[in-house]
Amino acid sequence: MDKKQLPKAKEVLLLVDVINPLNFPGAEDLASPAIEAAKCIRKLKAQLRRQGIPTIYANDNYGVWQSDFKDLIRSCKKSPGPAAKLVTLLPPQRGDLTILKPRHSAFLGTPLDLMLDQMGVKTIILAGFATDSCIQLTAMDGFLRGYQIKVPSDCTAAESAQHKKQSLEHMQRILKCSIKPLSHG
Amino acid sequence: MDKKQLPKAKEVLLLVDVINPLNFPGAEDLASPAIEAAKCIRKLKAQLRRQGIPTIYANDNYGVWQSDFKDLIRSCKKSPGPAAKLVTLLPPQRGDLTILKPRHSAFLGTPLDLMLDQMGVKTIILAGFATDSCIQLTAMDGFLRGYQIKVPSDCTAAESAQHKKQSLEHMQRILKCSIKPLSHG
Amino acid sequence: MDKKQLPKAKEVLLLVDVINPLNFPGAEDLASPAIEAAKCIRKLKAQLRRQGIPTIYANDNYGVWQSDFKDLIRSCKKSPGPAAKLVTLLPPQRGDLTILKPRHSAFLGTPLDLMLDQMGVKTIILAGFATDSCIQLTAMDGFLRGYQIKVPSDCTAAESAQHKKQSLEHMQRILKCSIKPLSHG
Amino acid sequence: MDKKQLPKAKEVLLLVDVINPLNFPGAEDLASPAIEAAKCIRKLKAQLRRQGIPTIYANDNYGVWQSDFKDLIRSCKKSPGPAAKLVTLLPPQRGDLTILKPRHSAFLGTPLDLMLDQMGVKTIILAGFATDSCIQLTAMDGFLRGYQIKVPSDCTAAESAQHKKQSLEHMQRILKCSIKPLSHG
Repeated sequence: MDKKQLPKAKEVLLLVDVINPLNFPGAEDLASPAIEAAKCIRKLKAQLRRQGIPTIYANDNYGVWQSDFKDLIRSCKKSPGPAAKLVTLLPPQRGDLTILKPRHSAFLGTPLDLMLDQMGVKTIILAGFATDSCIQLTAMDGFLRGYQIKVPSDCTAAESAQHKKQSLEHMQRILKCSIKPLSHG
Repeated sequence: MDKKQLPKAKEVLLLVDVINPLNFPGAEDLASPAIEAAKCIRKLKAQLRRQGIPTIYANDNYGVWQSDFKDLIRSCKKSPGPAAKLVTLLPPQRGDLTILKPRHSAFLGTPLDLMLDQMGVKTIILAGFATDSCIQLTAMDGFLRGYQIKVPSDCTAAESAQHKKQSLEHMQRILKCSIKPLSHG
Repeated sequence: MDKKQLPKAKEVLLLVDVINPLNFPGAEDLASPAIEAAKCIRKLKAQLRRQGIPTIYANDNYGVWQSDFKDLIRSCKKSPGPAAKLVTLLPPQRGDLTILKPRHSAFLGTPLDLMLDQMGVKTIILAGFATDSCIQLTAMDGFLRGYQIKVPSDCTAAESAQHKKQSLEHMQRILKCSIKPLSHG
Repeated sequence: MDKKQLPKAKEVLLLVDVINPLNFPGAEDLASPAIEAAKCIRKLKAQLRRQGIPTIYANDNYGVWQSDFKDLIRSCKKSPGPAAKLVTLLPPQRGDLTILKPRHSAFLGTPLDLMLDQMGVKTIILAGFATDSCIQLTAMDGFLRGYQIKVPSDCTAAESAQHKKQSLEHMQRILKCSIKPLSHG
């Protein structure tokens, strides 16, 4: 393994399921808050990029066990509606890292923990969808592995505002996450 | 996660590092036995395909943390010499599965264990390169996780014939692998 | 490893942190609902025992990295108040299995997944403390690994009734847990 | 989890299966070289203890899934012959850490990786039995996780001198282990 290509960083931005076909049951309720959150994530990503903080895209492989992230991007771009909007707001840029995750948590069955360890990462800034599902389960796994987690509350979205709120409270109380929104950052 | 696309199978063919730029120190000693082994693997793969046994390609991501297996294939095809020969002998076919591995073992930091569990796999037929490195470390991890492992001795290659022999003996004795060659199969 | 001593079972009762010194901040709020839940767990355990369903105790090692479960039991028995009450209600019995867990989830850094796999377990009946912490994080890990999870709502307790309720709802909605109480079972 | 009780250390001595009933097939061939190696390990442990380097005992749970290391020690002490000799040569001392391992590798299904991470360990000094089995499989797992490994060749033993030699060569060549004996150290 060539270790040269992984940058060193204390912090990393982890974008969960932002490249997203939005074709699952309930996705119509997620689409609108997801696009609002994506606009915040776009600002956050630009700001962190200027500080040299790397971005990792962690995406569902959507049942296609063929390890091709570019195919996923192409397919989202072509779709009508909010999936294309998301990929337009948050296109992977030169130097961004990508992993495909087979489960809700970005840690399980992926190289994420090995990557973060090699990079020297201590703090994960976690953003994406949905707050009470893949974000919360990724936060749990990160917390259990000893990472400090930040979930800026305006950079994540769920199908229900109440579930988002309860999920953020759980992450703050049990998983010791900071949930301060970007807009107050 | 859409589970539909993973086939059910008791056995699976796991090809380790057969899509391989062969550009590491020592690769010139591996090239010739690797191509001989690849010819055997080609026969084995065709035979298993007729029996409905799926193939999984597990390849090094070669330091490019960008989850794109097709890029790796394209780059090997263009290379002069043995790397292109390998990919011509063992091209991924429709229905083959692929994973990218960050370490020597195909289990660590990959979805392999989750995939095999979902597929119902009990026996791994392990082939590829190099016998005493990625093959042996993958065999160890499979053995520790309770899989029965077969390493057909003519479907694997190492830089040194003696290291290959000792490694196969270790896998047979300690990891309880069958090492019966395909040609006697 | 001698595999003989692990019983075969489709279901297992997993008791999380029921042997518990109750000496952490907030424990005074947990003590009373924990003892109520322990009375339900006692019934559940007896009932499952008659059906031949094994019990696994998963307990925090409380910073003592010395793999001795009996010491933990002895120390709880001697303590005044609710810790002794808990161990009296739920004493490990002949044939019960025990593991020590270093983190909130009973899966991380323990042999639990290997044990369940060897036993042939598909369904985990999860009980113990606290609902929104070790129970929920264990449920998450079990869900991600493909187990069906039941959390009988009267066999678990938290420091706050509202947090318990929200946590059970999350486990039901996202982690697909059954939360039907024992008393309705 | 109370983290206070784990010492900070760059290096650690990991003793694999030195508390050992020696009652498996082939154990009679291991007993004599194991006792010779245990004498070296005893010196090594004393020397490292003076330098403040902690020792971790990793032992098979021998099918008894009941997390009690002291029981294992008691049972070995009572046995006639080499098992009692081993535990007399290498008794756990105040401050030594212990884990029970369900598989050959001391990493799988144990808190070892979490412990080493918390302690800040970079280098594992690995000793115990048998060289080509639990030692080599632990070395593989440690290597894959990025640890630097030392296997002092006189502090380990196998049933066959030739298997020991080949195993040490593999660990040196593939797993980048130092195998310099203690007596040359």
